[in-house]
Amino acid sequence: MSVPAGPERLVVGIDVGGTKIVAGALRGGELLGAVEHPTDTSSERAVIAGIESAAREAIAAHRPPLAVGVGVPSQIDFATGRVLTSVNIPLAGEPLSEDLTRRLRVPVVVDNDANCAALAEAHLAGVDHLVMLTLGTGVGGGVVVDGRVFRGASGLGAELGHLVIETEGPECPGACPNRGCLEALCSGQALARDAAAIAVAGPESRLAALARERGGPPAGVDVVVAAGEGDADALRLFERFGTSLGVGMSGLMNAFEPELLAVGGGLSRVADLYLPRAVEEARGRALPTIAERVRIEVARGGPEAGLLGAARLAASEVGREGRAA
Amino acid sequence: MSVPAGPERLVVGIDVGGTKIVAGALRGGELLGAVEHPTDTSSERAVIAGIESAAREAIAAHRPPLAVGVGVPSQIDFATGRVLTSVNIPLAGEPLSEDLTRRLRVPVVVDNDANCAALAEAHLAGVDHLVMLTLGTGVGGGVVVDGRVFRGASGLGAELGHLVIETEGPECPGACPNRGCLEALCSGQALARDAAAIAVAGPESRLAALARERGGPPAGVDVVVAAGEGDADALRLFERFGTSLGVGMSGLMNAFEPELLAVGGGLSRVADLYLPRAVEEARGRALPTIAERVRIEVARGGPEAGLLGAARLAASEVGREGRAA
Repeated sequence: MSVPAGPERLVVGIDVGGTKIVAGALRGGELLGAVEHPTDTSSERAVIAGIESAAREAIAAHRPPLAVGVGVPSQIDFATGRVLTSVNIPLAGEPLSEDLTRRLRVPVVVDNDANCAALAEAHLAGVDHLVMLTLGTGVGGGVVVDGRVFRGASGLGAELGHLVIETEGPECPGACPNRGCLEALCSGQALARDAAAIAVAGPESRLAALARERGGPPAGVDVVVAAGEGDADALRLFERFGTSLGVGMSGLMNAFEPELLAVGGGLSRVADLYLPRAVEEARGRALPTIAERVRIEVARGGPEAGLLGAARLAASEVGREGRAA
Repeated sequence: MSVPAGPERLVVGIDVGGTKIVAGALRGGELLGAVEHPTDTSSERAVIAGIESAAREAIAAHRPPLAVGVGVPSQIDFATGRVLTSVNIPLAGEPLSEDLTRRLRVPVVVDNDANCAALAEAHLAGVDHLVMLTLGTGVGGGVVVDGRVFRGASGLGAELGHLVIETEGPECPGACPNRGCLEALCSGQALARDAAAIAVAGPESRLAALARERGGPPAGVDVVVAAGEGDADALRLFERFGTSLGVGMSGLMNAFEPELLAVGGGLSRVADLYLPRAVEEARGRALPTIAERVRIEVARGGPEAGLLGAARLAASEVGREGRAA
């Protein structure tokens, strides 16, 4: 195990999502308490002020921390801590690490939120080599190699949600020019798209009825509810979801040979609807020597996994660079 | 650049292929001479004796080397140097590193040949982050991260030829249970399969005629020759080959974000038949921030790239583990 257990000195982890910002202070890897606030996405300035205030609140009762780690749902140029692209919150172009370091007067390390979640998961699961897929509105990816976050040459790698598994598949619903990628087939948006097609073709379908009851267009949650009731349309969508996920997993197993392939994100709470199918498909397709070595599991991480990973990352990066005060 | 330039002490690199074994001694990264022998694949014993004799010949004029590196077309459990599976030469189950260390009385490091080629290519191209695809009879893969070979948890990773890009695509012609993977679509065997289908459906086709002239079933080389003549069937096959390759490349770019994606192997000598199509497809599908950073090029490595990479690997591994005499 080379994932460090965390330093004895205080570090702060912050998980910035499209709806809320969660921050917490840790000592010796132990969470001393967490605060949660809604994300004000009205402007870059508002988001950054929200991160700063969550950080200040998390450390209010303590001495200044060794470092602060921040996970954001964005592409990060890791060396500079600058946000390159950001879909759900307005941070694109922002030199986030520099800004927050200046405001908080401690080293701030910024990374993609899925990278932070993967680092937390590797620690929780006790593995050094991990691939994590986060299935929610979109599909995120994080990779840990030898206990460290794998980022590619400049921090943009591990975008596992945009691995193509169907050359002529549907267009990606995210900010990606691809088609037939995992996000186009195994995401909440993909479920919503397919449910809408079913509801339009069959106004008497259960999916159409559920959407009418909610008073909106069909959404991923309708497919989850309908599948729980045994609705044939919804079960068929999750069957395809599981098959596609398994196909993608086989490629990730062959490419990364992790000890553990973890499935997290909001849709991991209903993994029984698709994960058995995905595991069967993945194990049948991966090279047999690899299939027999890689475990596939639902991620252990709870609601604090993102901030725990961000804190862990900050501690290891600042320790490594000798930037500690 | 963290790929080491090679030690001043002598190291030996050996590239073991299905048809020949090439060995050479290096000092300070410079090749002092290479020997080449046909591979006797009649038994494990014969292959190992062939590797031993090539090694002895390569070092005959010199003092004992610091280490010997051997690249084999096999899956290797890297920690033990044991061969797990091997398709074209009989080495499966062999504790190759241990056997050769005992025979040669110097540390012997064994790795997959595509990993060795990737390490050589990273050095030749002057990059620390590389993904390499070797297109030949099958499709091999090698990944260099931060100047070191990336292997996954136990040495089985970077099997990039078995990344699925068409869920319902053709069965893999290699020893892989998958379908629609890169090897099933972008390999010499895939070209031969498609050429055979065309020749059977159209005995008057140019591909059928070329196979008759050669006196065998259609092969990848017939498609290359016919494409060079402007034959429409062959050009269509290479168009599809390029598209599929580009789809796979987009996934590798998104997952690994290398500085350089290099295309090597025997089919890289006719890259003009498919690489422009592949590059266009890959750049159109990868995330734009990644597409603009990753270079895509034909591999620089010549016939000695495999042995140079094996030697470089041996030097760095033995140096790292302090196993040097």
